[in-house]
Amino acid sequence: MAESPRPKRKREEEEAGAAPHDGAAAAVPPFPLAELRLRRVLRESARDKAVFLHGEVSSPSGEGTDAVIILEKTPFQEEKVLDLLKKHTKLELQMRNDIYSTYHLYPPPELSEIKTTVVYPATEKHLQKYLRQEVHLIRETWEDYQNITLPFIQSQSFSIQWVYNILEKKAEADRIIHENPDPCNGFVLVPDFKWNQTQLDDLYLIALVQRREIKSLRDLTAEHLPLLRNILQEGKEAIAKRFGVPGSQLRIYLHYQPSYYHLHVHFTALGYDAPGCSVERAHLLADVIDNLAMDSMYYQKRALTFALRADELLLKKFQEAGRV
Amino acid sequence: MAESPRPKRKREEEEAGAAPHDGAAAAVPPFPLAELRLRRVLRESARDKAVFLHGEVSSPSGEGTDAVIILEKTPFQEEKVLDLLKKHTKLELQMRNDIYSTYHLYPPPELSEIKTTVVYPATEKHLQKYLRQEVHLIRETWEDYQNITLPFIQSQSFSIQWVYNILEKKAEADRIIHENPDPCNGFVLVPDFKWNQTQLDDLYLIALVQRREIKSLRDLTAEHLPLLRNILQEGKEAIAKRFGVPGSQLRIYLHYQPSYYHLHVHFTALGYDAPGCSVERAHLLADVIDNLAMDSMYYQKRALTFALRADELLLKKFQEAGRV
Repeated sequence: MAESPRPKRKREEEEAGAAPHDGAAAAVPPFPLAELRLRRVLRESARDKAVFLHGEVSSPSGEGTDAVIILEKTPFQEEKVLDLLKKHTKLELQMRNDIYSTYHLYPPPELSEIKTTVVYPATEKHLQKYLRQEVHLIRETWEDYQNITLPFIQSQSFSIQWVYNILEKKAEADRIIHENPDPCNGFVLVPDFKWNQTQLDDLYLIALVQRREIKSLRDLTAEHLPLLRNILQEGKEAIAKRFGVPGSQLRIYLHYQPSYYHLHVHFTALGYDAPGCSVERAHLLADVIDNLAMDSMYYQKRALTFALRADELLLKKFQEAGRV
Repeated sequence: MAESPRPKRKREEEEAGAAPHDGAAAAVPPFPLAELRLRRVLRESARDKAVFLHGEVSSPSGEGTDAVIILEKTPFQEEKVLDLLKKHTKLELQMRNDIYSTYHLYPPPELSEIKTTVVYPATEKHLQKYLRQEVHLIRETWEDYQNITLPFIQSQSFSIQWVYNILEKKAEADRIIHENPDPCNGFVLVPDFKWNQTQLDDLYLIALVQRREIKSLRDLTAEHLPLLRNILQEGKEAIAKRFGVPGSQLRIYLHYQPSYYHLHVHFTALGYDAPGCSVERAHLLADVIDNLAMDSMYYQKRALTFALRADELLLKKFQEAGRV
């Protein structure tokens, strides 16, 4: 959460904008993967079948240049599954018990693509970004928020110009799914950059509020109930209308800490295990509304839990204050 | 949540007990994967890189027998990553932009194993189990709980004898990590069956309360605060002592709905994306304690959200009551 989202979005935009097969790109010789020296594994994810590597390429002068290489196995493609079953190069029985059996299946190369991403040359910052970090849980009281988190947010002055560009129709105007233009209780609903909109399985949209002074959950009071109810109601309706996904199949929530301090609400497909939907970060909008209806000052009283990576500056602030 | 956990536990024990390489199994000819007719894709997971298939094997008489085939790509093995980079059969540049480039890498068969699980012959129940089910979000009011959920729980009379066996030391006594024997405010902490205890990455323990009349979150009042605080405090201490994982790296929560109606608390590694830790099912124990300290009747007043699969009986009850 301590990083401004702008670089991430910017890079994603650039990547999206880069023609995958344009002549210039195709003319560039491939990165010399085979000549790479492997320095270490930065991180791996057994669940996602991905691994993040720190490599080094030696120049003719003998000096090494760092690179990050990300390998990720690709999802199965429905239309190729039958090929996989028929064209395997080897099938080894591993165990058999009653009606259950397991095998090792070795597919031909053309059916086992690995998505490979290279960052080269990579800086120390790139290496840090992909390195596995210890994660610490913080239980932030209202006093902690005032004494540690709020000063930290204010000192960072993250740029959220990209949010204003969307609200002012200076960018992404063609991507808007729904808009309520009311300056106090209105919002704009756009697809999140993580969603490519080609399948509904990983549907992901974001509602950005028109008001600019609400940083996060911590600022919300009963005054904001009309705004929050608009987002819940109109957001569901717009998604049902445009994508055919009913409100009962949506997970609608806020993050605390958010990755940028302009109030926004996440809409994800309920069946999709979206990053950031776990209990230590996500707050259901319906619960937020009920909490504020019960007690206008709920979020100025209650302790809130969140996780911070060991390299995040906010964690250092909590440590300096003796709160971790 | 509508299924008693006992069968699942039993099945896992049986599967774990099957010798992977016993002579009898090795002598059985492999399942004729290549002769399989593909009926349909039951479910796929783009994130896990897994697909669940419904297949059919024709007998000589022409009659078909159903089978379930599960394909799952395997995690990268650290010691083979270098081979993957050096021995790829083909490397295609996909796009290049500044320091970023992406490739399609096609590894040789021996480096791209697919874990294949076959259930054969498969019954309709097996097919249903693996079939993608629509998931519906329920917002259960206290009235819904009293009128729909509670009568449903009472009508099911799930057996939780296995819980009593643990509490009475008739089973798993050697697995107990910590015990507070107080009949009112005590509990037993045991490793969850999903965790094999060989690595801390996916650490998973369960605290089972000694008291037998607390079904779920819905029954909790301020009366239970000493019990809940014992679980939070002693659970953290016991895990730090036995496994060296500090409390700040644990996610400690209850499920609603739970999978069995004897109050229990989940302890999972914060870095582990445990199933069931998302915001629509998990409730942080620290939040539960604060809510009860604020209002003893909090969980007898508030609406609670949870997801139900289309084949769950409780969903039918909500539908019959016109609440979905």
